[in-house]
Amino acid sequence: MSRYALFISYDGTGYHGWQTQRSGRGVQDAVRRALSKLGEDVVPYGAGRTDTGVHARRQVAHCDLKREWEPSKLALALNAHLPDDVRVMGASLAADGFDARRSAVSREYRYHIWNSHFCYPFIKRYVMHLPMQGIDWRAAGEAVRAVEGTHDFRAFCRTVDAPDDTTRTVSDCRLYRRGDLLVLRVRANGFLTNMIRIIVGNMIAVGTGRRDAAWLAGLLSGAERKESSQTAPASGLFFWDAEYPDGSFISSDL
Amino acid sequence: MSRYALFISYDGTGYHGWQTQRSGRGVQDAVRRALSKLGEDVVPYGAGRTDTGVHARRQVAHCDLKREWEPSKLALALNAHLPDDVRVMGASLAADGFDARRSAVSREYRYHIWNSHFCYPFIKRYVMHLPMQGIDWRAAGEAVRAVEGTHDFRAFCRTVDAPDDTTRTVSDCRLYRRGDLLVLRVRANGFLTNMIRIIVGNMIAVGTGRRDAAWLAGLLSGAERKESSQTAPASGLFFWDAEYPDGSFISSDL
Repeated sequence: MSRYALFISYDGTGYHGWQTQRSGRGVQDAVRRALSKLGEDVVPYGAGRTDTGVHARRQVAHCDLKREWEPSKLALALNAHLPDDVRVMGASLAADGFDARRSAVSREYRYHIWNSHFCYPFIKRYVMHLPMQGIDWRAAGEAVRAVEGTHDFRAFCRTVDAPDDTTRTVSDCRLYRRGDLLVLRVRANGFLTNMIRIIVGNMIAVGTGRRDAAWLAGLLSGAERKESSQTAPASGLFFWDAEYPDGSFISSDL
Repeated sequence: MSRYALFISYDGTGYHGWQTQRSGRGVQDAVRRALSKLGEDVVPYGAGRTDTGVHARRQVAHCDLKREWEPSKLALALNAHLPDDVRVMGASLAADGFDARRSAVSREYRYHIWNSHFCYPFIKRYVMHLPMQGIDWRAAGEAVRAVEGTHDFRAFCRTVDAPDDTTRTVSDCRLYRRGDLLVLRVRANGFLTNMIRIIVGNMIAVGTGRRDAAWLAGLLSGAERKESSQTAPASGLFFWDAEYPDGSFISSDL
């Protein structure tokens, strides 16, 4: 038995998130089915959950396999059994004790907003389409920097999923603009359910002038969820990457 | 009756090209059906044909409408009746005598190649996926510049569609690289059937070392189609834009 890491990209539109579902419509289920086609009856464990409709550029998962696989052949073999909207983009032998979730030093998500009257069909599944004009993105981008640091993010968590400890440390939270596309990059040690989508909702509330920067900063000391703005749609959100200590990945042959 | 220009973006994956089909699976058919839902029983005429599976970022079409439409309302109304993979991105009142095809000064197409072992599911429909490694893109990009100028492009046209005169003038033909993505931009006064996809096939033949730059340049003096390399797949190709004389578009209210 050896432990492997899989680097998985998926279009989450047709899935009920990463996590295994009774319906079998979790991305984890799709990967598990492909592994079983290779004679490997194991569950792949992911670095981060993603909700229904959320995408992943580079989800990391680990699993213990009976056979010794050349990493690139493992990736190709899995892709032959996966649906088109899930792709294994690479694989690696992992260090002893590597755990995709627990070993992760940080995770990065990105949220995409398309702020124009009309949205190209090519990107529609991957953005929040916001046709409203005159949004002050400079103010929104400055206000959202307040999220950086260690805070009590209770107001940024779906109420039913709130754990006892809602404190998280965000190392990076920045808004980038390129023409009509806005990208919010958020890196943290951990996230709460819907955290980024609620950050985005609050950021837009500032950009549209309904709220101000002081209001957003004021939410970061354990305010209630109902004091926050609404949750932005899943389509704009990507699990972008997870960072691991050096030496976590032993070999990848590409 | 007033003449309007429509700026149309579409994912061509599910269509038999722009042109009206008996099957009704032309993009032109989809736009015509949406116009008829607005009580406008007219055919929209496009700036350029696109083949089965080819996409458009900004196809331009003209049509004569009975009602006077505010351009942005026309676009919104059409989008309400169009399938998700076809979007009207804007509209404008057009100058007298404007003709989307005949008035065009030039047209630009772009071809996208993803040159990496694995391809993200998000872009799969919009690229040619070329997993082969070690391609000399510098040599390919230099060789393809030979296409610029006025040449007899007989070797770059699907044989059954070759017109008597296969001379065209290409003002710009350049390969750009950004990481694993290669983009070929081609601007010309007119194109032959499959012309860009055959240019791409020949360019790749140089990049892989099967052929050299002198061979590609030698095809540009009326060589036969069979002397060229194979046609690259439709998925990578976009009708990017058409250029018109100043004053062609009278008003657009966005």
